[in-house]
Amino acid sequence: MALLIAVHGWDSESWSSRFSNLLPGHDVRCHPETTGNPAEIRYLLAWKPDSDLLASLTNLEVIFSLGAGVDHLLQTPDLPDVPIVRIVDPDLTMRMSEWIVLQVLLHHRKHRTYHAQQHQRLWQPHDQPAASAVRVGIMGLGVLGRDAATHLSRLGFQVAGWSRSPKEIDGIRSFSGADGLDDMLKRTDILVNLLPLTQDTRGLIDYRLLSKLSTDGKRHPGCDAPVLVNAGRGASQVEADIVRALDDGTLAACSLDVFETEPLPAPSPLWTHPKVYATPHVAADSDPQTLSHYVAERIQAFEAGEGLINVVDRATGY
Amino acid sequence: MALLIAVHGWDSESWSSRFSNLLPGHDVRCHPETTGNPAEIRYLLAWKPDSDLLASLTNLEVIFSLGAGVDHLLQTPDLPDVPIVRIVDPDLTMRMSEWIVLQVLLHHRKHRTYHAQQHQRLWQPHDQPAASAVRVGIMGLGVLGRDAATHLSRLGFQVAGWSRSPKEIDGIRSFSGADGLDDMLKRTDILVNLLPLTQDTRGLIDYRLLSKLSTDGKRHPGCDAPVLVNAGRGASQVEADIVRALDDGTLAACSLDVFETEPLPAPSPLWTHPKVYATPHVAADSDPQTLSHYVAERIQAFEAGEGLINVVDRATGY
Repeated sequence: MALLIAVHGWDSESWSSRFSNLLPGHDVRCHPETTGNPAEIRYLLAWKPDSDLLASLTNLEVIFSLGAGVDHLLQTPDLPDVPIVRIVDPDLTMRMSEWIVLQVLLHHRKHRTYHAQQHQRLWQPHDQPAASAVRVGIMGLGVLGRDAATHLSRLGFQVAGWSRSPKEIDGIRSFSGADGLDDMLKRTDILVNLLPLTQDTRGLIDYRLLSKLSTDGKRHPGCDAPVLVNAGRGASQVEADIVRALDDGTLAACSLDVFETEPLPAPSPLWTHPKVYATPHVAADSDPQTLSHYVAERIQAFEAGEGLINVVDRATGY
Repeated sequence: MALLIAVHGWDSESWSSRFSNLLPGHDVRCHPETTGNPAEIRYLLAWKPDSDLLASLTNLEVIFSLGAGVDHLLQTPDLPDVPIVRIVDPDLTMRMSEWIVLQVLLHHRKHRTYHAQQHQRLWQPHDQPAASAVRVGIMGLGVLGRDAATHLSRLGFQVAGWSRSPKEIDGIRSFSGADGLDDMLKRTDILVNLLPLTQDTRGLIDYRLLSKLSTDGKRHPGCDAPVLVNAGRGASQVEADIVRALDDGTLAACSLDVFETEPLPAPSPLWTHPKVYATPHVAADSDPQTLSHYVAERIQAFEAGEGLINVVDRATGY
């Protein structure tokens, strides 16, 4: 029985050599070059795999997603009915929190203004609210959302979070359900999206949602808000609405690491919009070495009779 | 007996009205408009006070410095021999840590590169080391240095600190003394300065010091280093040496909030140097309201017979 690596847009050769080293007793193959007999494949290590591949893997036991999100798999027709294991890796979580903290601080500390002033040789301090006067709202309180919430809370921000089902996290105000989302948006100066892509979250961040941000009349006068920070999934945002909201002042600024189409097409106004920080889906680009160690360990544990952990719930989509 | 506000470059009227509200039983005066009889002044609340003022305050009991640093006072001739109280305020500490964390993450996460790419509509991810592969070194382990060290350590960086006398801080590698400084510099990819300005720290950050950074051969290949982050005092840095080090590659980049002369003079190459982030001494610009509350509380405690806290040691200069 073999292990098949099927990665779209990544170098499969280097994945293959890493797994051959980490799992020396295993038959490691790469799709499509060395797939061989599909009936021999026991484990699939996948990142956006070809849809015609999946139906052919008749003896598959487990799919390991080589990324935090699994929407790339769940959208695949003929997905075999086997457990899908997500990456939940401390390294990836740390990287995501780093990116979120950086973006929140960039906006909070008026980096865009000071950077522009620097090029004008202008020495001009601005009124700076304390973090404790700024309200951050995080959509999605899974492993990533909780970790980001904790770091931002330690820096002094008033952090709230929203998730489908109620969560209890120390020092974080928790909202849930549709009404809960509206309540959180109203008191949110900086909105962070870390939701997985599901039927419910596709297109969620539209003009209507952005219009609700920071509307409770309690914003600190020195706080440039509202701000959107999206490191979840690009398909959760309506980019035309974001541009409209930036241009009419509904939104003060945004930081986007994900986009409806990636790479972001050249004609997109997001590239050069003065109120946008855009990064090329690198917020939590986990080290392939670290990911490989994680997956190899999970395979060894599974073969030693331990249960699988971080298995995706197909009903909720994450 | 009266309280005198002597602030240079700040609006003394608004300070005066804040203290009149907070200490209703006190005679609050502003220098030079309403100084009156200098012999009646019991407390001086000072930021860069005129030197000729100090000698005239013959019945002064306490000087409160309206900022974290007290070098502006200690350099004043005829400084009366009364206790000088420093501001040690959680709000100011949080703001400083925010700025330090922001600058460290800007460099660590290659913001300059991604921002330049954005304007070229270029989608190009770069090799990103984990924070755990990056060594931060902090000069100065007082209240501000310890707090910044703790935040950076929680984000996963390998944090070390240097101070005159040895310190023990959980999770932080501590260096002290002259040899200790060299040892820390060698293993430091990102150097953060939070030292007070004293005889020993004036001009400390020169070409020779910068040349020692990150020279132990253990730098992660994906880490753009060495980097200097100075939020201490401008007189601790030799700006001509920083520019030379940036231009010849000894230094990869820097973030400066303080300068030899402030405001930074227009001809300075630091304004528009592509490897420099410069902010106008705003890293920890504490809210005057918060500072006023702090000082008013200290005055009330002193009058209630409690001892003074955070009194400056004139021998060490901080």
